[in-house]
Amino acid sequence: MNAIGMFGLGVMGANLALNMANQGEKVAVYNYTSDLTDAFQEKHPHENITAYYELADFIQSLEKPRKIFLMVTAGTVVDSVIESLVPLLDQGDIIMDGGNSNFQDSNRRYHDLKEKGFHFIGVGVSGGEEGALNGPALMPSGDKAAYQHVAPILEKIAAQVDGKPCCSYLGKEGAGHYVKMVHNGIEYADMQLITEAYQFLRERLGLDVHEIAAIFTEWNKGELESYLMEITADILTRVDEETNQPMVDVILDKSEQKGTGKWTSQNALDMGVPLTIVTESVFMRFLSNVKEERMTAEKELAGPDSLLEQADKDEWIELVRQALFMGKISTYAQGFYQYKQASEQYGWDLQLDDIALIFRGGCIIRAGILNEISSAFQADKTLSNLFLSPYFKTILNTYQNAMRKVVIKGMETGLALPCFNASLVYYDGYRSGKSGANLIQAQRDYFGAHTLERIDKEGHVHIEW
Amino acid sequence: MNAIGMFGLGVMGANLALNMANQGEKVAVYNYTSDLTDAFQEKHPHENITAYYELADFIQSLEKPRKIFLMVTAGTVVDSVIESLVPLLDQGDIIMDGGNSNFQDSNRRYHDLKEKGFHFIGVGVSGGEEGALNGPALMPSGDKAAYQHVAPILEKIAAQVDGKPCCSYLGKEGAGHYVKMVHNGIEYADMQLITEAYQFLRERLGLDVHEIAAIFTEWNKGELESYLMEITADILTRVDEETNQPMVDVILDKSEQKGTGKWTSQNALDMGVPLTIVTESVFMRFLSNVKEERMTAEKELAGPDSLLEQADKDEWIELVRQALFMGKISTYAQGFYQYKQASEQYGWDLQLDDIALIFRGGCIIRAGILNEISSAFQADKTLSNLFLSPYFKTILNTYQNAMRKVVIKGMETGLALPCFNASLVYYDGYRSGKSGANLIQAQRDYFGAHTLERIDKEGHVHIEW
Repeated sequence: MNAIGMFGLGVMGANLALNMANQGEKVAVYNYTSDLTDAFQEKHPHENITAYYELADFIQSLEKPRKIFLMVTAGTVVDSVIESLVPLLDQGDIIMDGGNSNFQDSNRRYHDLKEKGFHFIGVGVSGGEEGALNGPALMPSGDKAAYQHVAPILEKIAAQVDGKPCCSYLGKEGAGHYVKMVHNGIEYADMQLITEAYQFLRERLGLDVHEIAAIFTEWNKGELESYLMEITADILTRVDEETNQPMVDVILDKSEQKGTGKWTSQNALDMGVPLTIVTESVFMRFLSNVKEERMTAEKELAGPDSLLEQADKDEWIELVRQALFMGKISTYAQGFYQYKQASEQYGWDLQLDDIALIFRGGCIIRAGILNEISSAFQADKTLSNLFLSPYFKTILNTYQNAMRKVVIKGMETGLALPCFNASLVYYDGYRSGKSGANLIQAQRDYFGAHTLERIDKEGHVHIEW
Repeated sequence: MNAIGMFGLGVMGANLALNMANQGEKVAVYNYTSDLTDAFQEKHPHENITAYYELADFIQSLEKPRKIFLMVTAGTVVDSVIESLVPLLDQGDIIMDGGNSNFQDSNRRYHDLKEKGFHFIGVGVSGGEEGALNGPALMPSGDKAAYQHVAPILEKIAAQVDGKPCCSYLGKEGAGHYVKMVHNGIEYADMQLITEAYQFLRERLGLDVHEIAAIFTEWNKGELESYLMEITADILTRVDEETNQPMVDVILDKSEQKGTGKWTSQNALDMGVPLTIVTESVFMRFLSNVKEERMTAEKELAGPDSLLEQADKDEWIELVRQALFMGKISTYAQGFYQYKQASEQYGWDLQLDDIALIFRGGCIIRAGILNEISSAFQADKTLSNLFLSPYFKTILNTYQNAMRKVVIKGMETGLALPCFNASLVYYDGYRSGKSGANLIQAQRDYFGAHTLERIDKEGHVHIEW
């Protein structure tokens, strides 16, 4: 009998199956079309893996409760696969979905399957092809009892950091895919922040790509240590063989997306969470796509466009480093605030410290900072915003100066730094005991009789303006 | 026989019915609960209005094709009202919905009713209680042929500017409610922009509320002329009788919302539109609500908090005026870009110049600038972004300097100006022929093999990093 079945043999499914097999599990594999199954068998013969061409055979080869891991295209395909599986299953069998599914679909599937006597475990998977094979970050959710059956396998194939698996039970329903969604939002922001540091160093400080690669490599040894920092340094060393130009210079500056960053922002709007930095990074991807318009606007719209003095080079490099770290802290502060709100509003009881631990390995946003984030939420389970934790507060109180200098210099020289900016604006907005919202409430009450609260009394009143 | 029936006698429904009656139309009115009908009859006896207590009587009193205007709570109530009406109607009868309905609901209702042989006209209504009575801005959509039946009434009760009604047919399906939704998003941004100007003048330039009221009154005579500018000036003159303090100072700075701003941002994310300013204004409302946290953060997080030199007062006031106008232009540029994208993606053929004309009267965002916006889109039907129109381009090329100075001064003095900021960042991003998106594409291809485009070749390629 096989311990687990992998449904879907695209690159991710194939690599996860191999990962499980390498960990000593007997794995059944199946794909809707036989060509991928053939190719997989030929390319990856493995003593622990058996391929099946009939769905019924695949299902019957599994130990009960059956554990079936779906790695198929997110969306309606998942529903149709589940529909085809259900008649072949027994009560208590477990379907896992490892795709980039929308958490609301996972909520629905969880309840639908539960009603029919089956278990649904949504598993957020991060780490790309390489992570899938050698250890991804896994974000599972569903019935806790059902999770116990799959935990031994999932926690074994996950990335391991300091002896802990980057996988732990997150909560009910689609909580796992939710955690993965916000992870991706943070990833968008992180990429944009690094890009802004790069743009400042290159276009305002006048450094070349190799100097910047060296700087990023150096930064990667300190508090900015992260996978994205590492690969960006590597990217900047690459030279295009055809043109002999830096590779980054021959790539078109229109950025695409798969939609999970957008979902994160849309959900933040539903949750009442000011997710400004992730959202700016999504909007900047949109803006990048009107390349032709931007090229016209460059000629039509005025503004300063100047290099800085080279003299202050080392000082500016350190200011940018601090600004980048502050941007990163702000992104996590907002993203983890979103987790907190979602946990309350959806009743999931998310453990923020555990989420940070999962992110330490296997996934795209893995970074040294996650240890500190986990510690902050472990030390204070009621912490609402990372900005108020002792560790990060101390850093921010210093680094906000650097951020201010970099952002102001960007504005003086006409360089858009949307995520750096959003980080500083959020910082200054958050530390404003008094905001301007009283005037907005006055306007709303004036034109729409929406009522307002006074500072000196309980309750809502309408003012006769 | 009555020309039109008003279903729902809340303040908005009552005032719209009176408006129609005042314009000489015979109006039937009905409400689900009789108490509102009684109150309406007693308070507003009108020779052109007949109240009905039985739904069937109400319906049978109407000329065919019957025209029924719903003014009930948006959401499921609209569906249940439609359900109760349908059995009483004849083919070709027309149901109008004047609530703040989600345009997707209006799309659905349009098609559902069409299938059954009826017409649905979604009507965005702006102007609040006073506008409803004396002339609102109306944004109708649905079948064009059905609109011809209701046009004489709608265009008569709408606000009139320069002899033109602030009402014209906008397109199929829920296009009208869509236009209203983005109108509300723009309203959020406009309110936040005015608030930021106020905060700068008060908290950094040290002016008192009466000085600011006088400045806003003065600004309202020039290119910033608008209803929101006018009422804000009025708000700032008000004194609280209980405390003898400026009214604005006794109002709690937590701002609420009804959700249409949020919808606008969520839709922009779906449309691929960088709607940064409206979205910041929504996020700032969220941030305002963590008042207690902000008061803690004020003590814990460092930053400059200083007044400016009084010496430059007049110069700074003019810089803030220019910044505010640039913020307003940017908001409209983004909002009308969203209309353009929606028109293409939903197949609505929205006329951007007509939309601007509708907004000139009756609605909350009515403003002098709308004449210029309408002219810009009339002069160039293919114009993608207002920034590239001759009129606004000329202004931006000057005012971007003022915006830069104000935003930088805000950052130097620790004052968050999120929408001013977003406006400048968008400006600098839009006029960047070369963005940083090439590096983001490199990162995506590096960790996820998402492929990328080169500047020198067609098509997507994956690079072996």
